[in-house]
Amino acid sequence: MQNVFPEATLRAFTQQVFKAMGCPDEHAVLATDVLLKSDLRGIDSHGVARLSGYVRLWEKQRINATPNIQIVHETPTTATVDGDAGLGLVVAPFAMQVAIEKAKQYGSGWVSVRNSNHFGIAGYHALMAVEQDMIGFAMTNASPLVAPTFANERLLGTNPMCYAFPAGQYPPLIVDMATSAAANGKLEIAQRSGKSVPEGWIQDAEGNYTTDPHALKSGGSLLPLGSDREHGSHKGFGLSATVDILSGVLSGANYGPWVPPFVAFMEPLANAPGQGIGHFVGAMRVDGFRPVADFKSNIDNWITRFKSARTVNPEQKIIIPGEPELEAEADRKLNGIPLVEAVATDLNQLAERLGIQPLV
Amino acid sequence: MQNVFPEATLRAFTQQVFKAMGCPDEHAVLATDVLLKSDLRGIDSHGVARLSGYVRLWEKQRINATPNIQIVHETPTTATVDGDAGLGLVVAPFAMQVAIEKAKQYGSGWVSVRNSNHFGIAGYHALMAVEQDMIGFAMTNASPLVAPTFANERLLGTNPMCYAFPAGQYPPLIVDMATSAAANGKLEIAQRSGKSVPEGWIQDAEGNYTTDPHALKSGGSLLPLGSDREHGSHKGFGLSATVDILSGVLSGANYGPWVPPFVAFMEPLANAPGQGIGHFVGAMRVDGFRPVADFKSNIDNWITRFKSARTVNPEQKIIIPGEPELEAEADRKLNGIPLVEAVATDLNQLAERLGIQPLV
Repeated sequence: MQNVFPEATLRAFTQQVFKAMGCPDEHAVLATDVLLKSDLRGIDSHGVARLSGYVRLWEKQRINATPNIQIVHETPTTATVDGDAGLGLVVAPFAMQVAIEKAKQYGSGWVSVRNSNHFGIAGYHALMAVEQDMIGFAMTNASPLVAPTFANERLLGTNPMCYAFPAGQYPPLIVDMATSAAANGKLEIAQRSGKSVPEGWIQDAEGNYTTDPHALKSGGSLLPLGSDREHGSHKGFGLSATVDILSGVLSGANYGPWVPPFVAFMEPLANAPGQGIGHFVGAMRVDGFRPVADFKSNIDNWITRFKSARTVNPEQKIIIPGEPELEAEADRKLNGIPLVEAVATDLNQLAERLGIQPLV
Repeated sequence: MQNVFPEATLRAFTQQVFKAMGCPDEHAVLATDVLLKSDLRGIDSHGVARLSGYVRLWEKQRINATPNIQIVHETPTTATVDGDAGLGLVVAPFAMQVAIEKAKQYGSGWVSVRNSNHFGIAGYHALMAVEQDMIGFAMTNASPLVAPTFANERLLGTNPMCYAFPAGQYPPLIVDMATSAAANGKLEIAQRSGKSVPEGWIQDAEGNYTTDPHALKSGGSLLPLGSDREHGSHKGFGLSATVDILSGVLSGANYGPWVPPFVAFMEPLANAPGQGIGHFVGAMRVDGFRPVADFKSNIDNWITRFKSARTVNPEQKIIIPGEPELEAEADRKLNGIPLVEAVATDLNQLAERLGIQPLV
């Protein structure tokens, strides 16, 4: 079996999987687009590698393939969307479209989302705004894996936040980051390769720092960005709390330890205070502040100046946020998307179970 | 000379200083309130300790004591404010008031500010929104002190971001943080006490990590939150870049290395791309998303759950963001505000120069 697949092959396969779940065609196309964007951008942990996870949640009836997604509360520039337990891959773009329409009319739009599921990469949603010459915001809470500063308990997800800005001659500047010291995907890579991880990423079940990547599976926790109190882990905790409150508390979704697990073999906690997981997305028109051309020429100037910065090692240039992902996208559109053997095998087992054509 | 001063004494003194600069009474009262809020909340680096710094910038004609602060561009929910080189302590509350009025009418309000100066603690401005049952956002760019990941050059300020949320039975939850691993104030404390600082806070002029707190003054740089690439310093860089773009690029203020220095003895760079320093503030009505009572009961539930978390050391409880500052405020309102000898002396020299009553 080959390990590199053309984008079109993975796209067709993924659409078939979503259609086999009973998703309407339009939803299958959109959900696939979100996952493929992640694979194209080199964020392998959030693309088709998660496909069988979504299917298992659907089999457990925790994902609704035919959701009635609707606005349940709104003002001219704010709204709460109920995702009806649909795929976050479909619910979040719906919410961002609401934000964009509000921004077109009033300058900005902000949507908090409840009763949703994992939404893929935050960057996909934020970039929808950028295409309209708006600044895009996207965040989501997630299953608890992270211990706040001083805690020995998983109370927060890796809760990513994303800010995306249009540029002129350069591609958009995109900050898309987990608020933990390391994303769970990086840990999974270390687990597969049997390598240790840097101190400051995780603590074990007793709350001691460890370099064993398997410690997370035996009762340990990821650490917030900053790693320890002395290096600002209370800031990573504060950012993660912000994501959790804007996504979960503001919308009526679950939050903190009650966010339902992504893995189907773990049941959600009893006494949930809300519905599903939560997102928060927003869009602001650049020309609500200054002419778009002025903004773009200045952000180009910003990028040019930072790219030309003096570096510690002259061969290691500064990386502009979003730049590596854009390079991966250009490469993978041309040369295909590599999948590790385990993922390709998993997808073909999924195809067999759902009665669709395997990857070849 | 006593070292602990009643709030009222410092308030009266500080107002006199601003009036001696020529500030209108209303501005003197407001600017004083911002500084005293910082001292009350235990953030000693951003309170009256900076007073003589503002005066020196005014003496250099880089601060305008009688600014004509105005909206120069707007939509129903966005605006750009020109601070006319006024005190950020006055300009930022003006901008937040604009955001709040827009939010009252349309659900949210967002204001980018140019041609301003240092605005004190971000938390002061964000809390203005919280008092109206809104969620408050406040950020500012600042003089370059921080080297982005891989850089050996100061290109960003400690660029703080603040998110503030109203609660019910608890005080507001406030995340107010520099996007560097350590704030400059912490470094100054180490410099005064002659102690070394943890590795991961600063690098020296050659770009090597160092524990010498004086390295910053001899050509070194602060490091972004995350400290090094392996622990996520690119995330701290990304957050700081976000603050810089929303505050500086979006408003038409300066950004990156061009942000004018706070210290009067350093001249701003030539070829500045904008005017003064920039801020970004915002307000969103909680009831734009769900009823205020529902939000408050859920955020109380969030706080209660996190406060009761199992901790690594049973005697070290989790700290809810904003909690230590609130405890300091209660204590200092009652027992007075301690000033280190150097600050008290500096303030009395300032009084002599301006011909006002010294602190006693």
